[in-house]
Amino acid sequence: MEHELDLRQYNVRTDLALEAKELAEVGGAGALQGVRAETVQEEGITITRMSIDNEIGARAIGKMIGQYVTLEVPGLRNQDTVLQDRVATVFAREFEAFLQRLGVGKNANTLIVGLGNWNVTPDALGPLVVENTMVTRHYFELMPDRVAPGYRPVSAVAPGVLGITGIESSEIVQGIVQRTKPDLIIAIDALASKAIERVNTTIQIADTGIHPGSGIGNKRKGLTQQILGVPVIAIGVPTVVYASTIVNSCIELLSEHFKRQTDNAGPIMGMLQSLPENDRLQLVREVLQPVGHDLLVTPKDVDQFIEDIANIIASGLNAALHDAVDSSNVAAYTH
Amino acid sequence: MEHELDLRQYNVRTDLALEAKELAEVGGAGALQGVRAETVQEEGITITRMSIDNEIGARAIGKMIGQYVTLEVPGLRNQDTVLQDRVATVFAREFEAFLQRLGVGKNANTLIVGLGNWNVTPDALGPLVVENTMVTRHYFELMPDRVAPGYRPVSAVAPGVLGITGIESSEIVQGIVQRTKPDLIIAIDALASKAIERVNTTIQIADTGIHPGSGIGNKRKGLTQQILGVPVIAIGVPTVVYASTIVNSCIELLSEHFKRQTDNAGPIMGMLQSLPENDRLQLVREVLQPVGHDLLVTPKDVDQFIEDIANIIASGLNAALHDAVDSSNVAAYTH
Amino acid sequence: MEHELDLRQYNVRTDLALEAKELAEVGGAGALQGVRAETVQEEGITITRMSIDNEIGARAIGKMIGQYVTLEVPGLRNQDTVLQDRVATVFAREFEAFLQRLGVGKNANTLIVGLGNWNVTPDALGPLVVENTMVTRHYFELMPDRVAPGYRPVSAVAPGVLGITGIESSEIVQGIVQRTKPDLIIAIDALASKAIERVNTTIQIADTGIHPGSGIGNKRKGLTQQILGVPVIAIGVPTVVYASTIVNSCIELLSEHFKRQTDNAGPIMGMLQSLPENDRLQLVREVLQPVGHDLLVTPKDVDQFIEDIANIIASGLNAALHDAVDSSNVAAYTH
Amino acid sequence: MEHELDLRQYNVRTDLALEAKELAEVGGAGALQGVRAETVQEEGITITRMSIDNEIGARAIGKMIGQYVTLEVPGLRNQDTVLQDRVATVFAREFEAFLQRLGVGKNANTLIVGLGNWNVTPDALGPLVVENTMVTRHYFELMPDRVAPGYRPVSAVAPGVLGITGIESSEIVQGIVQRTKPDLIIAIDALASKAIERVNTTIQIADTGIHPGSGIGNKRKGLTQQILGVPVIAIGVPTVVYASTIVNSCIELLSEHFKRQTDNAGPIMGMLQSLPENDRLQLVREVLQPVGHDLLVTPKDVDQFIEDIANIIASGLNAALHDAVDSSNVAAYTH
Repeated sequence: MEHELDLRQYNVRTDLALEAKELAEVGGAGALQGVRAETVQEEGITITRMSIDNEIGARAIGKMIGQYVTLEVPGLRNQDTVLQDRVATVFAREFEAFLQRLGVGKNANTLIVGLGNWNVTPDALGPLVVENTMVTRHYFELMPDRVAPGYRPVSAVAPGVLGITGIESSEIVQGIVQRTKPDLIIAIDALASKAIERVNTTIQIADTGIHPGSGIGNKRKGLTQQILGVPVIAIGVPTVVYASTIVNSCIELLSEHFKRQTDNAGPIMGMLQSLPENDRLQLVREVLQPVGHDLLVTPKDVDQFIEDIANIIASGLNAALHDAVDSSNVAAYTH
Repeated sequence: MEHELDLRQYNVRTDLALEAKELAEVGGAGALQGVRAETVQEEGITITRMSIDNEIGARAIGKMIGQYVTLEVPGLRNQDTVLQDRVATVFAREFEAFLQRLGVGKNANTLIVGLGNWNVTPDALGPLVVENTMVTRHYFELMPDRVAPGYRPVSAVAPGVLGITGIESSEIVQGIVQRTKPDLIIAIDALASKAIERVNTTIQIADTGIHPGSGIGNKRKGLTQQILGVPVIAIGVPTVVYASTIVNSCIELLSEHFKRQTDNAGPIMGMLQSLPENDRLQLVREVLQPVGHDLLVTPKDVDQFIEDIANIIASGLNAALHDAVDSSNVAAYTH
Repeated sequence: MEHELDLRQYNVRTDLALEAKELAEVGGAGALQGVRAETVQEEGITITRMSIDNEIGARAIGKMIGQYVTLEVPGLRNQDTVLQDRVATVFAREFEAFLQRLGVGKNANTLIVGLGNWNVTPDALGPLVVENTMVTRHYFELMPDRVAPGYRPVSAVAPGVLGITGIESSEIVQGIVQRTKPDLIIAIDALASKAIERVNTTIQIADTGIHPGSGIGNKRKGLTQQILGVPVIAIGVPTVVYASTIVNSCIELLSEHFKRQTDNAGPIMGMLQSLPENDRLQLVREVLQPVGHDLLVTPKDVDQFIEDIANIIASGLNAALHDAVDSSNVAAYTH
Repeated sequence: MEHELDLRQYNVRTDLALEAKELAEVGGAGALQGVRAETVQEEGITITRMSIDNEIGARAIGKMIGQYVTLEVPGLRNQDTVLQDRVATVFAREFEAFLQRLGVGKNANTLIVGLGNWNVTPDALGPLVVENTMVTRHYFELMPDRVAPGYRPVSAVAPGVLGITGIESSEIVQGIVQRTKPDLIIAIDALASKAIERVNTTIQIADTGIHPGSGIGNKRKGLTQQILGVPVIAIGVPTVVYASTIVNSCIELLSEHFKRQTDNAGPIMGMLQSLPENDRLQLVREVLQPVGHDLLVTPKDVDQFIEDIANIIASGLNAALHDAVDSSNVAAYTH
């Protein structure tokens, strides 16, 4: 029971299944039951395909049963456009395979939902992807006979955030889904990570939809198959970190540092080290609370990376969703 | 019959009822049947309250039966923030009176719809107003007992444009209306005017909703009470001009110029002058067509004005919709 | 004499030597003395290399003695990223050849000056190019021994506009030139064209520098070799049109239209046609004057094109200035 | 000696003299020699006027000899426009008094320098202030006889950052100063603070100029009277925090927390607590280093505050610099 609480606390800290797994492995005894994962290295891109198969695995990691694919590309911080093009191509390939594993048909009418807030840079990922995606649904509606082969109907909306609209984004999406009847929803969201080095360098694909409390924007209602009636694939990129997780990671590292330096680490980091991870995190949070309501932080140069990664995702989606868009040169179809 | 065609052509040229009326008066014999109008001057602001009472008036002007209020403020081009505050206050007062004349109750649940495209400056008016409006609906939903008196539930969405979303904005709004059940819709749209001097200096309020083909964005479906089931008030600001209307206005002015200079203007402007207005316009359009698909033009410094006028409208709406927001200092509630 | 006045008037209307030449040819008897030009077509790109050799040519066209290269790419309006990459490559090649013809050495210390106003979209071309150019001067200053071969020292500044800074941009550049001693200046400026279809689709390179009154921003002082002491290459893109030139072009076209329809065009377009071109233009301008101080207009979707063309120029400059940047994939070096 | 090193380390952490003083007082024995300070509360605004009178004070705090005025306004995080106007008025009054204390004359030709990078939100403060300042120098240059009384010549430039221009901003300013000969320079810069709660809520005025290493942008050369030959007033606002200072503050707080809970804190926080402050900070930094080159973080919603505070400063400067601008309604003169 207490352990369960522990995991929930972790969830607040990381939206990435990969990070959650790493944390669980550190805390536990290595390999986890009910969780399978394979990792591939590909010219600066680390691809991890992970499956949480049952409740045991879900509980161990604190993430939902489902399929997860993660692309880690530290080099994205260097604004290298050649690498960006390669990541878009790899993302397209992985996403297409993901659709196939889910059994999504070539013609499935697809609605892309860009969650987040235009006006807050690290939360603007979703709207930016929407802006750069190639939409085709209107051609299918207006002149279905004249659409070239190799395309499917794709639409894209950015529902805004509760503080700007006064309406839950999930309600807005429900209304649009009821009218436009898509077969599949792809929801893009900015996430919180445990680690600054993952910010703007990691892309996660998951078939679990978007759940309340995930992402930056404190959603109270989710975007899930249960609510919307159609499968929901979530694409997430960490763009912020909680200040409290930075502090906590640092304390952990300090504690290791001291252990290495002295035989007897016991008295040194004393109570802090002996505290269960989540109690310590709770303590750090309490200590930071007076600072203000919003402890999400982001690297200062987030502006320059958020547009690049939005372009990568939009290019990748264009190639993955339309056979007519060439996977080897996906960037050319994005503005 | 031919005259009717004539008027429709004008409609393509101006979305402003006031301009349509002026055009009709020039073409006709002065005062128009079925159209009533009063004009008030107020420290640099000209307010025209116009009513098109019946089909005769509607036909004469080429605008729908309904109530229209227009604020003309040439001084807005000077970026004078004191004047801007005054315009916001006058707009709030006129809009509140407009709501009363329509019989809209103090507690009517209101949805503000910002039409247009974030990424095209002169078409971004609607989204900018949405961004600056004070929304309250979520407080009424989440904790209805704790909302202070003097507020009504207000929500606000920017549905995007067909080219970005693949969905008609009217369909998106229909979906949202079906889920959130507002009593009133206020739709903000950027308009086309016949005259560059009206760009970013004129605000029109109308109870007729938004009709296909009006505004900048070539809507194919409207936002009207008939479609949405609740009253729709349209707020419009001209932010673009058709190149062909500039040319046509100029030819008219040249023709007057020549008349004044010579006794016998006949031979001089010859056929051009003798052409019915709409034939001449058609001719100008044909001549300009090779130039390209998009002849909407906008003053080069539109960026600087569009944000100011969006703030004026957002501030005015905040004061008009919520009694608790003081009409004398409306700007303070807008970010 | 009167003819001279005529040409000067034209200069106000177009900053493009190519347009000026076309106008002069229409007005005159075909080929012009003292002006040589060759035109090459290359997959959707029209390249015109023009030389005004002497005073006779300069007077005939109303442009300064010098070398001009113009790239016309109507397809740039379609946001085709493959074409954009090709234009960047062609621009790089032409610019490199231009430098060679001028005798600029491989190691010439180069200062790029982006004229114009960040906050007025059609005037933001220069600052956008500066933002996307690869600068290297600081590496040469800080660690000259460690700069890889194939690079030259490049710096880049956006001096702002008089209305924002209170200082002539040419004075700011003079100050910077005096301190940093470049061997060559490349000045980027947004231009006015006679024709909407040239907006954002044409790039002009000239070795004449920037002259007072050219460009959008009403410079009162120029950026020329005479003032700055080093060669100044100007790169210009038309991003605005004068309303009066639209009107004037249209009247001309109407007049031709009527001529074709009737044997005797004389009485029809009467005085208008018989007016010398510049008197007519003057008349149109007078007629339009009451409209307001600023008659520069721009297509409404200028936002979407200005960034593309800035990237093309920045990519092209990076490849042309640094041997180490591969001309075949220049876009990869631009963010 | 060691103490001196200690202070330097602090300087890297905070650009605010007020924070440096608080830190020094905590570390030392209360009131500091050579440092005078008075604090005034004014409806949500805390004003601290501080003077570092001699080397002893400078060494104790780790800041230069000089005058410092700090405005702390926690309420600025609430986007309250009424409060914003009040802060602008108070800032104007304090800045005017500051000018008088320095003996700057009413007609002193003033150059405002907005340091920082347009494209990185938390570093864009300086350029945003430049954009919103009322410049008048060109009127004095072009038509000195026609400038109304109550104005002085003011110019404003944003020199950009080394990574974009390839030129040190101080070199660009030197060039401009040599040409335009101002009597006073006001330099605006974004700063780093020790505490997230100070971000975007604190304004510091200092007569010490800008020094290498201060601000966000890693300047290598300063903007000082010694370099530029005229007095340089620096206006700074913290917009970022170092991740390491967050961690360090947190460890300190944790340590206090444990002390309160147990009689014998000694063994618990052990070595960490016993470490000298700067050694601990150094340790934290080492631990965080692998994360990446850039550990400056900023609250995720920085976009929304940076424009507000830039407007406050621009409005305040307009009122303080020109008698003709009414200090009671300064916002009206800013766009």
